[in-house]
Amino acid sequence: MSPFDTIIDRRGSGCSKWSRFEPDVLPMWVADMDFAVADPILHALRERLAHPVLGYGVSQAGLKARIVGWLEAQYGWRVTPDDILMLPGVVPGFNMALRTVCAPGAGVVVQTPVYPPMLKAPENGALRRIDAPLTATDEVDRDVFGAALRQAGQGAFLLCNPHNPTGRAFGREELAEMAQACLSAGVSIVSDEIHCDLLFDGRRHIPIATLAPEVAARTITLMSAGKTWNIAGLNACWAVVTDAGLRARFAATLSGVADHVNILGLIATEAALAEGGAWRDAALAYLQANRDWLAGAVAERLPGVAMRLPEATYLAWLDCRGSAAAADPHRFFLEKARVGMNSGTDFGPPGAGFVRLNFGCPRAMLEDGIGRMARALAGA
Amino acid sequence: MSPFDTIIDRRGSGCSKWSRFEPDVLPMWVADMDFAVADPILHALRERLAHPVLGYGVSQAGLKARIVGWLEAQYGWRVTPDDILMLPGVVPGFNMALRTVCAPGAGVVVQTPVYPPMLKAPENGALRRIDAPLTATDEVDRDVFGAALRQAGQGAFLLCNPHNPTGRAFGREELAEMAQACLSAGVSIVSDEIHCDLLFDGRRHIPIATLAPEVAARTITLMSAGKTWNIAGLNACWAVVTDAGLRARFAATLSGVADHVNILGLIATEAALAEGGAWRDAALAYLQANRDWLAGAVAERLPGVAMRLPEATYLAWLDCRGSAAAADPHRFFLEKARVGMNSGTDFGPPGAGFVRLNFGCPRAMLEDGIGRMARALAGA
Ligand SMILES: Cc1ncc(COP(=O)(O)O)c(C=O)c1O
Ligand SMILES: Cc1ncc(COP(=O)(O)O)c(C=O)c1O
Repeated sequence: MSPFDTIIDRRGSGCSKWSRFEPDVLPMWVADMDFAVADPILHALRERLAHPVLGYGVSQAGLKARIVGWLEAQYGWRVTPDDILMLPGVVPGFNMALRTVCAPGAGVVVQTPVYPPMLKAPENGALRRIDAPLTATDEVDRDVFGAALRQAGQGAFLLCNPHNPTGRAFGREELAEMAQACLSAGVSIVSDEIHCDLLFDGRRHIPIATLAPEVAARTITLMSAGKTWNIAGLNACWAVVTDAGLRARFAATLSGVADHVNILGLIATEAALAEGGAWRDAALAYLQANRDWLAGAVAERLPGVAMRLPEATYLAWLDCRGSAAAADPHRFFLEKARVGMNSGTDFGPPGAGFVRLNFGCPRAMLEDGIGRMARALAGA
Repeated sequence: MSPFDTIIDRRGSGCSKWSRFEPDVLPMWVADMDFAVADPILHALRERLAHPVLGYGVSQAGLKARIVGWLEAQYGWRVTPDDILMLPGVVPGFNMALRTVCAPGAGVVVQTPVYPPMLKAPENGALRRIDAPLTATDEVDRDVFGAALRQAGQGAFLLCNPHNPTGRAFGREELAEMAQACLSAGVSIVSDEIHCDLLFDGRRHIPIATLAPEVAARTITLMSAGKTWNIAGLNACWAVVTDAGLRARFAATLSGVADHVNILGLIATEAALAEGGAWRDAALAYLQANRDWLAGAVAERLPGVAMRLPEATYLAWLDCRGSAAAADPHRFFLEKARVGMNSGTDFGPPGAGFVRLNFGCPRAMLEDGIGRMARALAGA
């Protein structure tokens, strides 16, 4: 038995995932995992709390050195501690990044279906959202993407890579093509790479800013230990901005608003990067096995439901359009299977007929969920 | 001996206060206290960390009920849980509140000398800062204040009550006069009341929004357990906005940017309000005794230095203009006394010749600081 097989009761822990639906519903929605956090992280937090004063934290030299080391080791990305800004979350990060790089009222290109806060970010910043839907096989449609960029003005491309909910980890050529198109159109890049350490099948994550110096000069990259190490509740994230001018503008935008990270989030992030490598590897192997099991189970036991193998993330994007749940799969599975997923419609128009299933949980829980869904479809 | 007499070594705990200056400098600057956090808070945090999953937190019904109870018990302020928004800090709170209530380019009135992030907030939001200095006795100058409001357009008054650095806890009449002037001028009120639970001599804090419904309708009030319970590193705060329309506009401004609080900050805040009352009373008594001792020591041992008794906060605003340190007191005491305070000039023009001393520390430390300062002045 793997440690990831342990079923942990999260009810009563104040978590969002297990509170939204009625008690008999198995929650497989919001993007955190039902796994215990790595021991070195828990240890670092508990150790810090052994010290009884919890005042303001210091500047983050040690942590930034760890981030620099991680970026180089994982992606061959060489940056300096000065290139890094700490912020209280990736969502605040991309909201503020868009306000930094976009002219007032400019356009923000998003690749639907996509993480709902990305759909909302343009409006939050009084910017125009421009949808550039992925193809039916979750690839970039060059023409659609190019046309969207041409409408953006002095705007931005808000990239989600790896992509939530499709699980795409964009390859070098796709990324290069997107980057080139952005440069040609004079559009900046805000790249949410929060799922960057959860790539399957030995893939290596490619930060878009590593493609070329000209790309880096126009890119704000956002990363975090939140997804990989399952510490999303601690609200810490980092931005990498190698262009000094852009970084100064970003810092000015963040000033007074999103420039402070709580001390425990910083400590957890540092512990994750310093001592969490083995846990990450083990979690990733477990997730990959869950993914493979899930793909087989969907094919065999959920008639009319299709899923492509995610290349990254612990999220499966289930196409239910050919199934008995087609009309409103979120509601169907919630009501008939008592499984609570995310409704595809929250991810933009192409999400109609889809649900997003979170397989970041013990296998037994995943099996339970699929069993419930299979029975509901069989009974429909 | 009081538990607050315990000297706690904060070096190496990642704190800001003890990292900024050289090791032989006694730090008496940034506004956190050198006291252990109340046991119920540490207990709640440790208990939460006994649960090993740290994903996203849930909506905050229990916490909001506690806040409602605290507001009624402490200030006789009756609000509902719906009137409360949780945010990741008071500074983000007032920055975003100003953007909510001000027309583009409008004016923001601040009462100098004042907490430096308040001086910066207008610029952060592309607003105009209008200084309305307090009088030489730290009172509101009616004419100066009125004239400032008339320049504000559709702007805001950014109130700091209790006032940092002067330690004023504004009385009902002063507050009513300010509120009335704001209403007459069509200016909204953003009220930072973070020091609201640290009033001395039996004073009761008066939230400006409690003065009248018309005032409440135009006011965003910000409070936090951060100062009172010494958990500033945990980045949690609440806003009270009783007007539904204003609250909706504020929530929209915060959306995607400052609308998430880390789970441990929420837990600590709830524990503070639920079980921290006795600790607060004891801390306040200790701080009041520190204040009284300090006032005597300044009068006797720091020739040419004057201080008014703060009515609230653990901050003393030392007027050094008549002393040998007059030219640059921050530098003088840092270099000659090895005491690190805040420079008065950071608080706006009226701060020249002043320093801010933080007396939220064990008495022995305070005595050490004053001893150092006395010797430096004697040797000057
Ligand atoms: C693509 C993406 N970005 C950002 C986030 C959330 O980031 P944070 O909690 O740091 O704001 C998520 C969480 O699901 C996500 O999937
Ligand atoms: C008046 C005032 N407001 C706000 C703050 C800081 O609030 P927060 O840490 O919640 O942003 C301080 C800290 O010194 C303060 O004195």
